[in-house]
Amino acid sequence: MKTAAIVLIGNELLSGKIRDKNGYYLMRRLRGLGVDLKRMAVIQDIREDIARELESCSASYDYVFTSGGVGPTHDDVTLESIAGAFGVGLERNATLEGVLRDHFQERITDAHLGMADLPVGMTLIEDDAIRWPVLVFGNVFVLPGIPQLFHAKFEAIADRFRDGQFFLRSIYLNEDEANIADLLEKVEKDRGVTIGSYPRWFDTEYRLRLTVEARAVGQVDQACGDLMRGIDPAHVVRLDPSAVPSDSPDMVTP
Amino acid sequence: MKTAAIVLIGNELLSGKIRDKNGYYLMRRLRGLGVDLKRMAVIQDIREDIARELESCSASYDYVFTSGGVGPTHDDVTLESIAGAFGVGLERNATLEGVLRDHFQERITDAHLGMADLPVGMTLIEDDAIRWPVLVFGNVFVLPGIPQLFHAKFEAIADRFRDGQFFLRSIYLNEDEANIADLLEKVEKDRGVTIGSYPRWFDTEYRLRLTVEARAVGQVDQACGDLMRGIDPAHVVRLDPSAVPSDSPDMVTP
Repeated sequence: MKTAAIVLIGNELLSGKIRDKNGYYLMRRLRGLGVDLKRMAVIQDIREDIARELESCSASYDYVFTSGGVGPTHDDVTLESIAGAFGVGLERNATLEGVLRDHFQERITDAHLGMADLPVGMTLIEDDAIRWPVLVFGNVFVLPGIPQLFHAKFEAIADRFRDGQFFLRSIYLNEDEANIADLLEKVEKDRGVTIGSYPRWFDTEYRLRLTVEARAVGQVDQACGDLMRGIDPAHVVRLDPSAVPSDSPDMVTP
Repeated sequence: MKTAAIVLIGNELLSGKIRDKNGYYLMRRLRGLGVDLKRMAVIQDIREDIARELESCSASYDYVFTSGGVGPTHDDVTLESIAGAFGVGLERNATLEGVLRDHFQERITDAHLGMADLPVGMTLIEDDAIRWPVLVFGNVFVLPGIPQLFHAKFEAIADRFRDGQFFLRSIYLNEDEANIADLLEKVEKDRGVTIGSYPRWFDTEYRLRLTVEARAVGQVDQACGDLMRGIDPAHVVRLDPSAVPSDSPDMVTP
């Protein structure tokens, strides 16, 4: 199974000034693509912090996705930080310089051109659907912070990450999770599924949602059967009719 | 200036099954309290991952806040992970056991009582506004994942983190940030403020929002003056009338 990490870069996220959209979007997309997201970090525009996080994530996971810090101003330091993390220099990339010159024409400035100074060894993925290429260094995919551009660029490369699928089915209960803790642990081990247990303290319909997830529908259904047999029927509010791909819109708890 | 990190623990966040509310809430509250949030990590319910993140954050920042993993089921491993991170054992805490017994009465189970097995050296903050105490280990404040409980517990201890205030004022422009990149860097250095530059590609009112932030209103206003003098007035859409505390509701960009 492929693993991934997301690194969101930007003071504006940590100060609460701008609410993250990219991380949440990518979490759901990776889930839908069957990729196991292991970690997301939100960090400031500080070279050393970015370099440390990227070095560690790149070594630990199959894919790393960054968001932010690739514009033309002084706080855009993602590319420099990648160079620092992996011990390479920066050099002007002719292809990207051409793209920038085409776009900005006579309005181009040195600050714009600085966006074409890439870590040595960085590659560009071009696609008809996007005006500017996606930048890749090893297993690090560099995406912009502006949500519309982030989405467009990720969608242009998304297919290459497809690695199966996760399926999910939920059981809604009026029961205290502590009373079924042993059952949950046993079924999770027996069936090789992932079981989540989410109490709702302020919900009138149910008090606990159990989610059962696995890569095969049959596994999910067997585990749901085990759970239903182990739980007092008087406490069951409802069981989802079937397992659905775990990126379906209706699987998110508000 | 006090620094902080947030560690959100839970597979359900990384799979996109539940959208985080606690991290975003705490980001904004810490900003309002004058605390400099340096980092937020979202990690899985894995003991080694939690221990590594907490050990590193606890050593690097003044405060660490965790969310999640403190319930009675098999995937609630935050307390064990703290014990692992700091090399201490777990022991049953009599005060917390009493709170649990009072609450659950004859319905109490071993799984419930397990929630009172705390890392040796953990302290409890009790407050009339909350039923259950806040758990603290050194500079690590352990909060529950359920948003309503997370909020209630944080608010019960929030005052102790007050450390001045940040003020913010925005300038809205029809200008390419690359054309004023040098000006932004200079004013930031000259005035000791933090300047953010946020392009809006799909906004009809303006194309760039500049934010100026500092701990004193005077600093913010001087920096805004410098910027307004340096920018072609034809490109200015509007300037906020005054600096506001940076946790004001109207400072968030949707």
